[in-house]
Amino acid sequence: MAAKLKTAVLGVSGYSGLELTRLLERHARLEKPVLVRRENGGGARDLAEVFPELLGNGGYPLQPLSWGELKSKGVELLFLATPHEASRALVPEAIAHGLRVIDLSGAWRLKQEQHREIYSFQDADAATASELTEKAVYGLPELHGNGVANAQLVANPGCYATSVILALAPLLKASLVDRARGIISDSKSGVSGAGKTPTAHTHFVSIADNLSAYSLFTHRHVGEIVEQLGVSDSDLTFTPHLLPIPRGILSTIYVRLNRPMTAAEVETSLRDFYSGKPWVRVFATPKLPQVHYSLHTNYCDLGFCLAEDGQRLILISCIDNLLKGAAGQAVQNMNLMYGWDEREGLR
Amino acid sequence: MAAKLKTAVLGVSGYSGLELTRLLERHARLEKPVLVRRENGGGARDLAEVFPELLGNGGYPLQPLSWGELKSKGVELLFLATPHEASRALVPEAIAHGLRVIDLSGAWRLKQEQHREIYSFQDADAATASELTEKAVYGLPELHGNGVANAQLVANPGCYATSVILALAPLLKASLVDRARGIISDSKSGVSGAGKTPTAHTHFVSIADNLSAYSLFTHRHVGEIVEQLGVSDSDLTFTPHLLPIPRGILSTIYVRLNRPMTAAEVETSLRDFYSGKPWVRVFATPKLPQVHYSLHTNYCDLGFCLAEDGQRLILISCIDNLLKGAAGQAVQNMNLMYGWDEREGLR
Amino acid sequence: MAAKLKTAVLGVSGYSGLELTRLLERHARLEKPVLVRRENGGGARDLAEVFPELLGNGGYPLQPLSWGELKSKGVELLFLATPHEASRALVPEAIAHGLRVIDLSGAWRLKQEQHREIYSFQDADAATASELTEKAVYGLPELHGNGVANAQLVANPGCYATSVILALAPLLKASLVDRARGIISDSKSGVSGAGKTPTAHTHFVSIADNLSAYSLFTHRHVGEIVEQLGVSDSDLTFTPHLLPIPRGILSTIYVRLNRPMTAAEVETSLRDFYSGKPWVRVFATPKLPQVHYSLHTNYCDLGFCLAEDGQRLILISCIDNLLKGAAGQAVQNMNLMYGWDEREGLR
Amino acid sequence: MAAKLKTAVLGVSGYSGLELTRLLERHARLEKPVLVRRENGGGARDLAEVFPELLGNGGYPLQPLSWGELKSKGVELLFLATPHEASRALVPEAIAHGLRVIDLSGAWRLKQEQHREIYSFQDADAATASELTEKAVYGLPELHGNGVANAQLVANPGCYATSVILALAPLLKASLVDRARGIISDSKSGVSGAGKTPTAHTHFVSIADNLSAYSLFTHRHVGEIVEQLGVSDSDLTFTPHLLPIPRGILSTIYVRLNRPMTAAEVETSLRDFYSGKPWVRVFATPKLPQVHYSLHTNYCDLGFCLAEDGQRLILISCIDNLLKGAAGQAVQNMNLMYGWDEREGLR
Repeated sequence: MAAKLKTAVLGVSGYSGLELTRLLERHARLEKPVLVRRENGGGARDLAEVFPELLGNGGYPLQPLSWGELKSKGVELLFLATPHEASRALVPEAIAHGLRVIDLSGAWRLKQEQHREIYSFQDADAATASELTEKAVYGLPELHGNGVANAQLVANPGCYATSVILALAPLLKASLVDRARGIISDSKSGVSGAGKTPTAHTHFVSIADNLSAYSLFTHRHVGEIVEQLGVSDSDLTFTPHLLPIPRGILSTIYVRLNRPMTAAEVETSLRDFYSGKPWVRVFATPKLPQVHYSLHTNYCDLGFCLAEDGQRLILISCIDNLLKGAAGQAVQNMNLMYGWDEREGLR
Repeated sequence: MAAKLKTAVLGVSGYSGLELTRLLERHARLEKPVLVRRENGGGARDLAEVFPELLGNGGYPLQPLSWGELKSKGVELLFLATPHEASRALVPEAIAHGLRVIDLSGAWRLKQEQHREIYSFQDADAATASELTEKAVYGLPELHGNGVANAQLVANPGCYATSVILALAPLLKASLVDRARGIISDSKSGVSGAGKTPTAHTHFVSIADNLSAYSLFTHRHVGEIVEQLGVSDSDLTFTPHLLPIPRGILSTIYVRLNRPMTAAEVETSLRDFYSGKPWVRVFATPKLPQVHYSLHTNYCDLGFCLAEDGQRLILISCIDNLLKGAAGQAVQNMNLMYGWDEREGLR
Repeated sequence: MAAKLKTAVLGVSGYSGLELTRLLERHARLEKPVLVRRENGGGARDLAEVFPELLGNGGYPLQPLSWGELKSKGVELLFLATPHEASRALVPEAIAHGLRVIDLSGAWRLKQEQHREIYSFQDADAATASELTEKAVYGLPELHGNGVANAQLVANPGCYATSVILALAPLLKASLVDRARGIISDSKSGVSGAGKTPTAHTHFVSIADNLSAYSLFTHRHVGEIVEQLGVSDSDLTFTPHLLPIPRGILSTIYVRLNRPMTAAEVETSLRDFYSGKPWVRVFATPKLPQVHYSLHTNYCDLGFCLAEDGQRLILISCIDNLLKGAAGQAVQNMNLMYGWDEREGLR
Repeated sequence: MAAKLKTAVLGVSGYSGLELTRLLERHARLEKPVLVRRENGGGARDLAEVFPELLGNGGYPLQPLSWGELKSKGVELLFLATPHEASRALVPEAIAHGLRVIDLSGAWRLKQEQHREIYSFQDADAATASELTEKAVYGLPELHGNGVANAQLVANPGCYATSVILALAPLLKASLVDRARGIISDSKSGVSGAGKTPTAHTHFVSIADNLSAYSLFTHRHVGEIVEQLGVSDSDLTFTPHLLPIPRGILSTIYVRLNRPMTAAEVETSLRDFYSGKPWVRVFATPKLPQVHYSLHTNYCDLGFCLAEDGQRLILISCIDNLLKGAAGQAVQNMNLMYGWDEREGLR
């Protein structure tokens, strides 16, 4: 067997970082990943201090960031599970040191300037940032498998965006959707999607027995979705909601088809598009995905229901926001970058 | 003070029945309600055997159904919290015995035959059933206050229907909505809305950490909504979802306005429509209702967000499905039927 | 009817403060309470800004603290729902201004110095603090009804302490328990008991699908329990756990009786002790309380199970931590202080 | 590599059966297991019809039970995840056909007749049943590893029992516990432990926001615990509670030590006992296990806290009831039976 790949992860103390660490550790093609912490000073020395669930599998030492040390250890691929500001600052350095990078933040996903404005990036070196923005490949393997395979910088998609784009791509790319009638995604996410920082909004008492909508017409993932689907901003209405569950996303998506279709045609359209794509499951109508089915897996589950008129179509799309919506998709991208089976380390 | 009204409740062992019993018991205008059980044989003799939370407040004796006994006790108003088949059979009898009736089931809500088909009613006396169907007043007090006041039979609205109709009525009645572009209600409900009978779908392990959509394009409440809003069946897409919470409904509703409006205009439209209606709260934009805010109250909370184009509008509507969506609304209807303040017994 | 009592509440932005505000507002003997905020500067001007569930019932203006203003408004009774440090500082001032006080914190509950040490009180005026500590009445109405009636300062009990003391008092006061064999309370609480401040421990993702024990042998409520029960610190083992529910406490309590008893004797012992006490419900064996039954009520529910040997006894005690464990008990104490029925404003 | 072992699973439609199927499918030493359904007639033909989460991994065909067919397929090891009545009837047949058996029910765990009474077994062939009861090895690998290795019939332990026995065995076997003072286990379990059959008790609305104790002094697992720990029935008080979580057990266990010890001594005692046992993690005091840490793993997590007197000891024990409490432990037992590393297929 070939020598094992050496990887590092920066930003392991969040939910995605933990999930990623576990996946990488189990991946048969990898050496145990180098875990890098952003703070050079205090804080935990071992990730098991932050996440006691890691106890007993050997140590998870956290190291301060040193490009020299990563190189001397032979690290080739770096994962960043850092906030977008940090990713925007660190990725150019990593690339300059010759690393390949998979970034899980929103820092490098957007090609169109008007969509990037919402992030208010402060680039130290605007030219390099601009160049990397161009070169970055949007890491949705089902759409950009070839690009990912050859990328130096992969921008791992947002969780909501993954669920919405995968549901809509088959029909939109086939020009079957009447965009002028509007595309609506009513999306619902578990609380880990809101991050690990304690806030009034993520307090257990605020979430339990509750449901709330937020960021109406203004969520950051709108830019990703419209760029990837090739629609205009005003075509898409995207409404996220915070569910009283720890993880999982269900998007209920409403479109009108250009012409009356049968359920069988719709199902075929979805199945054909994802033929050979191991991480998308198309449900046979009238069965529908639920959050449960894709939890703790890397699947995106797709189902649909067509009105009697054959034109009003509802798509249901479910993912685990920490796996297909973050860490699992990052591993899937790595598999493509190194020519491995997309399923490796994810089953 | 006037003599207290004598009431009875039939079907008290479900979630709505319990809630209704508690409300009636506390209502200052009422004598303690007579609780009638449907089964003449075995079963509980006191409602506190079914719901130990009722212990300590005196007894809640359950009596077999006897029209003669209800009359001899001076009962004037009967609440039915029974399944629709039972209501369809029992209401004609109750009316024949001179009682006024508030029925919480779907038995008498629908005027149009095509909407009733989904219930497959088996009427013993078709002529009487037809006549009562005509006479029944849809008990949404904010729309039909006068009708309710004079009704002999009030058909208490469905929970989902209440949340959707109250959100849409102001703009639709003012012809501000472009119906041809479609009206979508993506609605989410707590599990008590699915009833108390144990099923695989309501098992804790099936619901916790999950979210699922169901009855796409086929939910029974569609008929109520389109009849009350005066739109056609194909104008409305209604998608219910089962939330991992015990109670509460949030509906996210998508419409396109006929012409660009300002948020202030929309807010005014809502506020004017519900002026003097104590049980609807319009939230000042950009604040939005959440399930929490209306829980354990009779409020319907309405909020909205308007896109920059001034035409794409999202309405958020929240209720407690057991109160404004069932027992609370029933009490509100009773208040109107007897000329009392709509808030009595509900604060 | 007599003139209505004027009250004020200091510290209304926490969970207990909200609950208390709602109870006082509905209480027929009271004028609408004056709501006092601790911060003189910024922050909310109306409590409905913090808790939108309060919208629509009229305003809840928040006022800066001014003893002169409270006096000029005729306020006689002050509730403090502040942290214990604030209560320790403010209560002497309130008393000096002639107010009667019900304090919901741990500041004045403990008579024995060794139990107070855990709070590390910093008293500006040690003599006054010491005097008030002596005079303060522990506000558990079922044990100290007469003291409460005449108290100037009532120290409202802790939530866990309420559930444990009420369960054990009947048998301990009757010397039926073998203390030397140890008294164990394994208690479980909803998250509102941990307060509203967001922390890593109260993040939804940390609580959901989880259970944890904390403060083993070191919880602050141990002092209250042993003082009130008249046992020594080493007699009691008290273990709190954090449940994935918003509110409610269940304590499972293990004792050994001095001599074999029958279940009927135990039940009689409990019933006799709480005869005439409206807010304790003794469950007839073999029925047991659950958290659900006392939620949103002021009841303490007690049940038990006796081993075949007639000596190993398990007591189950349930309360709503925000009502009988905080705000409801405060209202019950007020009722006693002013000679009203203990149930007023709490049904 | 050696030929892969052929296994079959009977009773795959429950929670443990699903978990077991997934584990066996991933186990590198096994062929894909044969899935046997108990009903010969209707019902699902593929397990993915019951559990849509299994879609996409190839089929999970369900076969009617035929001993001849199992033999002809070369099946050597049979897992039973059936109710205890079914296991009691089927295991003798399986043994007679020369299969090795791991039974997950309570059918074969108990050696002492007075403990078996609670199950009311109806054995067709009493002599064989009695003989098998004798031969069956209680499959707690940390206690009976050698027995398991050579067993023809392994009785997989109960979930609660696993959590309690593993916590207490080190100190009890070392005679460090004062049994006469009583051993109390206050245990809390997620709802999957109550099985998949819908009942009023497992309805989401009955469980959410609730906690309840049940089967006080009468739970079936008491027999297993006392037999395995070598204590008398009256030494142990075991109280199970139903938690509003899908899976996971936390037991809070109270004992008194025979003599004052230090925390270091207690920790050493636990660590030494489980030295070389990969599936027990001893937490370094003062850290304590939580349900979260062992979820979705085969670990039993142990922690403790010692009172200042050095004698009152609280042990905290956490497992995932479907893994270490059922399917994971079954795989661990299989590993021992075939001489493989205990961790295979469980990491």
